[in-house]
Amino acid sequence: MDLRTSYQQTSQQLSGHGKRTVDVLQQAFIEVDPNLASDHYGTGEVIERFEQKLAQELGTEDAIFFPSGTMAQQIALRIWADETGNRRVAYHPLCHLEIHEQDGLKELHHLESILLGDDKRLMTIEEVRALPDVASLLIELPQRELGGYLPPFDELEAISHFCHDRGIRLHLDGARLFETLPFYEKTAKEVCALFDSVYVSFYKGIGGIAGAILAGPKPFCTEARVWKRRYGGDLIGLYPYIISADYYYALRKGRMADYYAQAKELAHHFNALDGVWTTPEVPVTNMFHLHFAGEYEAVAARIQAVQVATGIGITGYLVSHDGYCSTEISVGDAYREIRDTERVRLFETLRSE
Amino acid sequence: MDLRTSYQQTSQQLSGHGKRTVDVLQQAFIEVDPNLASDHYGTGEVIERFEQKLAQELGTEDAIFFPSGTMAQQIALRIWADETGNRRVAYHPLCHLEIHEQDGLKELHHLESILLGDDKRLMTIEEVRALPDVASLLIELPQRELGGYLPPFDELEAISHFCHDRGIRLHLDGARLFETLPFYEKTAKEVCALFDSVYVSFYKGIGGIAGAILAGPKPFCTEARVWKRRYGGDLIGLYPYIISADYYYALRKGRMADYYAQAKELAHHFNALDGVWTTPEVPVTNMFHLHFAGEYEAVAARIQAVQVATGIGITGYLVSHDGYCSTEISVGDAYREIRDTERVRLFETLRSE
Repeated sequence: MDLRTSYQQTSQQLSGHGKRTVDVLQQAFIEVDPNLASDHYGTGEVIERFEQKLAQELGTEDAIFFPSGTMAQQIALRIWADETGNRRVAYHPLCHLEIHEQDGLKELHHLESILLGDDKRLMTIEEVRALPDVASLLIELPQRELGGYLPPFDELEAISHFCHDRGIRLHLDGARLFETLPFYEKTAKEVCALFDSVYVSFYKGIGGIAGAILAGPKPFCTEARVWKRRYGGDLIGLYPYIISADYYYALRKGRMADYYAQAKELAHHFNALDGVWTTPEVPVTNMFHLHFAGEYEAVAARIQAVQVATGIGITGYLVSHDGYCSTEISVGDAYREIRDTERVRLFETLRSE
Repeated sequence: MDLRTSYQQTSQQLSGHGKRTVDVLQQAFIEVDPNLASDHYGTGEVIERFEQKLAQELGTEDAIFFPSGTMAQQIALRIWADETGNRRVAYHPLCHLEIHEQDGLKELHHLESILLGDDKRLMTIEEVRALPDVASLLIELPQRELGGYLPPFDELEAISHFCHDRGIRLHLDGARLFETLPFYEKTAKEVCALFDSVYVSFYKGIGGIAGAILAGPKPFCTEARVWKRRYGGDLIGLYPYIISADYYYALRKGRMADYYAQAKELAHHFNALDGVWTTPEVPVTNMFHLHFAGEYEAVAARIQAVQVATGIGITGYLVSHDGYCSTEISVGDAYREIRDTERVRLFETLRSE
């Protein structure tokens, strides 16, 4: 058995909303009227209603449902590049577009990326102020690949004002936007007001199947719908994703404060163990990175033994660094299924293994 | 009331498989094990099994499930352009890429299209033989926008040999490939053997929700998976489309000969009416174009009256031409729900209106 298998065989997990199975879809469709018409290439009640609902929640003029955030964000940056006549976009070196999209932005749009910050920290406002002439700046809230850091809200405001003054379009990679709201103590609308365009995802903290919303001003969205057709994202029916996004959004948008509190509690317990620490030390959303001192084999064997002994899954993978290993924890509905006594036993077992 | 509304209110239709509602999804998922794991960014049993099944059916080395044919075909043509170092692709002027994709192929890949044939007929083998140097030739079987014509199989073979000799990659737009097999009296594998790459759709004759397969040699598919990620088509979960595609493929792939026979029968009845004709006059697949002499208002009023009187839907739209109007008929499961006496009444009513 390996670490991944031992994780898959656990009956409970610290992260997520339970296993990603067909049940996620079946649950969302139980109560749906079988006679409800499919959306039809971007039109129809089922898609238009959800788009308008999210435009209202985000406080934007319009919103578009996309099959993926990859597609949505490339299109956003392309539109801002065309509008400003500038091919340069700035973002963090760990930005999704830079590391997870096979260079789609460059291969499909020939845009040039300017990297701000480094792989240990967020970009700073000084780095933003020192930007060369760019079409747009993308900010990811929280910065997922760092474990979920957020800049203070007043720094976001300062960045927003600076970009506005300089004519730089500010785009929000808000894949986990709803997860940031308890820390900021703001509404989605108040955060989005700082940005020219916004992307949010429906399968991270929300736990839907897939799909994203891209939101912004009307002319921006009109142009984005043309690009959605060009990409082949304007499917004859996106309703499997839309209906599940709507269902899980209603179910979980009110739970983000709980996930955040539980992530802080969990990080506190991990940080009390010898040779174990989290980044951020005190989480600011539902997520954090979890680090274990030691080489891969030893750390994997320890976690695997704990998972087998307790039936509680910590993780299925580790990334090796020099002298330690890391993984990601992202709290959702699964965590609250773990009873206090089971959680106590988990940490006792971790301490003794 | 307008023509479209009168069509929507009919209880039976000549075309299609019944209304495109959420029930299409719910039916496909009734028997699926809730514990079946989602696919995960292109990996996992649910996607790999279907891809391998279709590779076998089409006789190709590999196959990839895509959310849309638009995405799949642009990628196919881009790969052949890169492989040959030639930016020119040839296809019919009514090709989907030329008229329905907001010029995605040109905007995203800067490929140049060479148009063969015209909007009244298929391309000829003489036109193919006169091609300038191009990377690839796309052939659509059947040519949907013409009403569904097919070249004779021996002409396809001759085109295939010519392209092979000239180093031109031959791509099949087989959105309706399964619908062509009864006329050709060939297997899908035998048709696909003439092509270097193949796209098939799962929501036309098959009647799934959305989704497509792109199939070809292994190196081509490896490259296509990279482009699928670049496009944002590599969703965390495509299973809503895959499971429904698999379900309706199993249900309907054996019915294509029936649809074809019924389309011929139906076209025969229409051609027996004064001022009404079909193209092709004798269909070669499940589809044909249906034409009515007269101006839009008169033709729409006539069809609307028939739809209200009989409860049988002919069409919800008409395209106006000089002195006549046209629409598309595409036979599926809905047609066999219409009893003989009802069909007789439909044509009697059409004759008297």
